[in-house]
Amino acid sequence: MAELISPRVLKGFRDFLPENEVLRRTLIARLECVFRDYGFAPIDTPALELSEILLGKGGGETEKQVYRFNDNGGRDIALRFDLTVPFARFAAMHRDAVPLPFKRYHIGKVWRGENTQKGRYREFTQCDFDTIGSSSAAADAEILLIMQAALTAAGAGNSTILINHRGVFNHFLEQKGVCGKLTDVLRAVDKIAKIGRDETGAILAELTNDKAAQSILSFIEITGGWDDALAAMTEMCGGPNAGLQRLDEISCFLRDSGVKNVFSLAPSITRGLDYYTGVVFETILNEIPSIGSVCSGGRYDNLTALYAKEPLSGVGASIGLDRLIAAEESLGRLPQQSPYAKCAIICVNEKHFGFYTKLASEFRAAGISCEAFNDQKKLTVQFMIAEKKGMRYVIIPSEEKSSEKKLTIRDITARKDTAELSFAEAVSLINGGGDKR
Amino acid sequence: MAELISPRVLKGFRDFLPENEVLRRTLIARLECVFRDYGFAPIDTPALELSEILLGKGGGETEKQVYRFNDNGGRDIALRFDLTVPFARFAAMHRDAVPLPFKRYHIGKVWRGENTQKGRYREFTQCDFDTIGSSSAAADAEILLIMQAALTAAGAGNSTILINHRGVFNHFLEQKGVCGKLTDVLRAVDKIAKIGRDETGAILAELTNDKAAQSILSFIEITGGWDDALAAMTEMCGGPNAGLQRLDEISCFLRDSGVKNVFSLAPSITRGLDYYTGVVFETILNEIPSIGSVCSGGRYDNLTALYAKEPLSGVGASIGLDRLIAAEESLGRLPQQSPYAKCAIICVNEKHFGFYTKLASEFRAAGISCEAFNDQKKLTVQFMIAEKKGMRYVIIPSEEKSSEKKLTIRDITARKDTAELSFAEAVSLINGGGDKR
Repeated sequence: MAELISPRVLKGFRDFLPENEVLRRTLIARLECVFRDYGFAPIDTPALELSEILLGKGGGETEKQVYRFNDNGGRDIALRFDLTVPFARFAAMHRDAVPLPFKRYHIGKVWRGENTQKGRYREFTQCDFDTIGSSSAAADAEILLIMQAALTAAGAGNSTILINHRGVFNHFLEQKGVCGKLTDVLRAVDKIAKIGRDETGAILAELTNDKAAQSILSFIEITGGWDDALAAMTEMCGGPNAGLQRLDEISCFLRDSGVKNVFSLAPSITRGLDYYTGVVFETILNEIPSIGSVCSGGRYDNLTALYAKEPLSGVGASIGLDRLIAAEESLGRLPQQSPYAKCAIICVNEKHFGFYTKLASEFRAAGISCEAFNDQKKLTVQFMIAEKKGMRYVIIPSEEKSSEKKLTIRDITARKDTAELSFAEAVSLINGGGDKR
Repeated sequence: MAELISPRVLKGFRDFLPENEVLRRTLIARLECVFRDYGFAPIDTPALELSEILLGKGGGETEKQVYRFNDNGGRDIALRFDLTVPFARFAAMHRDAVPLPFKRYHIGKVWRGENTQKGRYREFTQCDFDTIGSSSAAADAEILLIMQAALTAAGAGNSTILINHRGVFNHFLEQKGVCGKLTDVLRAVDKIAKIGRDETGAILAELTNDKAAQSILSFIEITGGWDDALAAMTEMCGGPNAGLQRLDEISCFLRDSGVKNVFSLAPSITRGLDYYTGVVFETILNEIPSIGSVCSGGRYDNLTALYAKEPLSGVGASIGLDRLIAAEESLGRLPQQSPYAKCAIICVNEKHFGFYTKLASEFRAAGISCEAFNDQKKLTVQFMIAEKKGMRYVIIPSEEKSSEKKLTIRDITARKDTAELSFAEAVSLINGGGDKR
C-alpha cells in the first residue's frame, strides 16, 4: 500500500464546513441585497492577473505579500491581493461598456502571504462597493449610508461611522509647515491607537518639532458633535477650505436622509498609506470596538491613473467579511441557519427508495426542503443522523403505499411519533401547526 | 507623466460585467436552491493547496496544466484544478465532523493552464454535488434525479441523461480477453464521438484483434429503451453480474420516482480516464446536443484513498457553469435580469440629495429597488443613464417637499410623464398598476 499523504491545508487557509459556509452565504446574501437595493451592480474579475497590472504602483509592503510566479508560458503573474486594483484595471478597460457614474459591488476572495495572526488569513473575502465617475458629495454620502445599511442588514448591531477628510488634514499640516514628511506623519498618526499618544507625539516631534507635534495631536484629538468638531477643525485650519466645505455638505445630506446618530467626525482617521485623497471612513461596532474597523473606505482622485489618460474619480468602501463574522461571533449574533434540509424521509425499506424520493419531491413542492435517506439502517441510527443534521422532524412512510393516512412523523427533539397522517397533515405539522392536531 | 500600463486580462481569463455577473449569480442561485432542497449542504475549500495534496496521483495531463509554484516560504503549492481532489482531502480531514452519509455541494472557480479554444477557459466555475459514505443504488439514483432537477431549474430545457456502468464494461472486456489494455480501450471508446466509428474500430483492432474490436463496437452501440438495452448488455456479458443488477435497481428507483423519459442506458459512456468505478453519467441537452455534456459524474470506490486508511465511497456529478451558459445563450434561454435597480430618483437639485436618498429608501422599503442619482445633470442626460441601466421608470421629485402629490414618474420607454402622484400612487404605477389610473 502506498504511503498516505497527510490531509492538511496551508497555514492561513481554511476549509469551510457546511455550518460556516451557510453562514458566509447568508451574510453575503444580506449584503448583496442592500447593494442591489441601492442600484449597485455586481462584477467579477480574474483571480490571476499580470503582475505588471497588479503591482504597477510597486507598493513595497504589498509586493512582499503577493503570491507571484511565472506560469507555464513564462508570464509573470500574481493572485489579486485586493479588489481595488483589479477594479481600476476593469474601469480603464470597460469604461465605454458601463454606464457612468458606475456603481458596482464586488465580493470575492483575495490572497496575501502575510504573517498569520489571530483573525488574519492568507485567503480572505472582501466586499467592495464603489461609485466611480461622480465627484459629488452626494456620492460620498451615499457610500456612508450604504455602509450603515449593510452592517445593519448583516446583523452587526449599532455602529459608529467615523469620517474625516484627507485634504483637510493635509491643509492643516501645510499650514504648520509640515510638507515634505506627509507620508511619515500620516503613518505615525495612523498608529496612535496601537502605540499610544506619547509614542506618537515623540515620533511627530522628531519628524517636525515639539510645537508642531503638540498642534497635530490637538487636531487629531478634536471630539464632540459634528458641528462643534467641524467648527474646531475650521479654526485650527485658519478658516474654511474645500475639504471642510465637503464635510459640511455631507453632513447636511446625512441629516436629511433620516439616518440618525451614526456618523461622527473624527480627525484622527487618515487610513494610513492608502490612496485616498478626499473623505475617508472607518467603522466602529459599538458593542465590540476592540475588533477594529469592519468597513473602511474613502474617496480617490483618479482610480485608473496607471492604465488610462482620462481621470476617473470615485468613492467606495470595503467590508472585511471575516472580521465581520468574528465580531458577530463574539456578540453571539451570527445568523442561525441549518445547512441541511428541514426534514428527511426515513429509508424503511431500501427497495422503495423510488417511492421515497417521489414523496420527498412532494414535500419540496410544498416548500419544505426534504432529504431522502439513501440507506436502510436501523431507525435509531437514521434518527441520530437526522439529529446531527439539526432536523426537528423525519417522515416515516408506511409500507402500505396505497393508504391515505400513511405517514408517521417523528419529532426528533421530543422523541415522539405522530402516526396515520395524510400528506397535508404532515406538511402542516412540519410547518409548525402540529400542536393543533 | 509615467507611461501607462495597458489594461488587459490574461489569455483564457475573463472579466464579468454586470449583465453577465448577474446572470451567473442567478443560475448559481437556482442550482443551489435545488441542492439545498435535496438536503445537500455547501462547503468551500482554499484555492491554493500543497502540490502534494493536489497532485498526489500525479496525473500526467493534469500536472502539465496546473498553476504550480513556490510561495515566499518555499512551499510547493498549486491552484486547485477541480473540486474533487480538494473534496477528497476535505473528507479525509473532516470525516468525524460531518454526518455520514455526507451530501455536499461545492460551487467554485478552478484553474487550468490548458490551451484555450472556443468555450474553454483557464479560469472556470464548477458546480459539484456528491454523496459520500453510502454505496447504495439509492444514492446513485438520487444524483441522477438532482442532475435532471438542476438542469431543469437552470432553464437548460429538456435533457437526456445517459447512464452506464464501468464495472459492466470491464466485465465484458475481461470476457473478451481484453485485460491488460483496459485504459487504452477506454481511451479509444471515449473518443468515438470525436474520431468516428471506423477510426475507433481500427484502434481497438490494433489493441486487441479484429473480432474483439467488432464485439466491443457492437457492445457500445447497443441502443433502445432501458429494458431492451439492459437485456442486450446482459446477453453480451454472458449473463447477469453485479453491475447489471445495479443498473436494474437504479432503473426501478427512477421509474418509481415519477420522473419520466429522461434517463437512458448508453454503453458507450465510459468517462475516459476518470476515477469512476461504478455507474457513470453524462447529459445531453436535447435542443443542442453538439455542445456536449454539461453535467457528468459517476460512482467512485474510495474517494480518500490517498489520505486515509478507511475507504469512503461515493457518487456525484459536476455541472460546468460556463458550458451551461453557452448552451442557454445558443438557445436564447438565458434568464433576463437587470443588474441595476428597478427605478431611480432624478437629481433635480443636488442640494436636496439627502431628501432624495430618504425618498429612495422609502421605495426600497416598499420592495422596489431604487437608485438615487448623485449628480445634478440635465434631465435628458439622467434619463439616458436610466435607459442605459434598463430602467423603465424614474421618479422626478418636486422642489416643493411639503406637497402631498409631489412626485412625477417618467416612463423612460414611452417618454411620457405622469405628474402629481402621491407616494402610494407612484409605487402602484412602478409595480405595473399604471394603466389603471
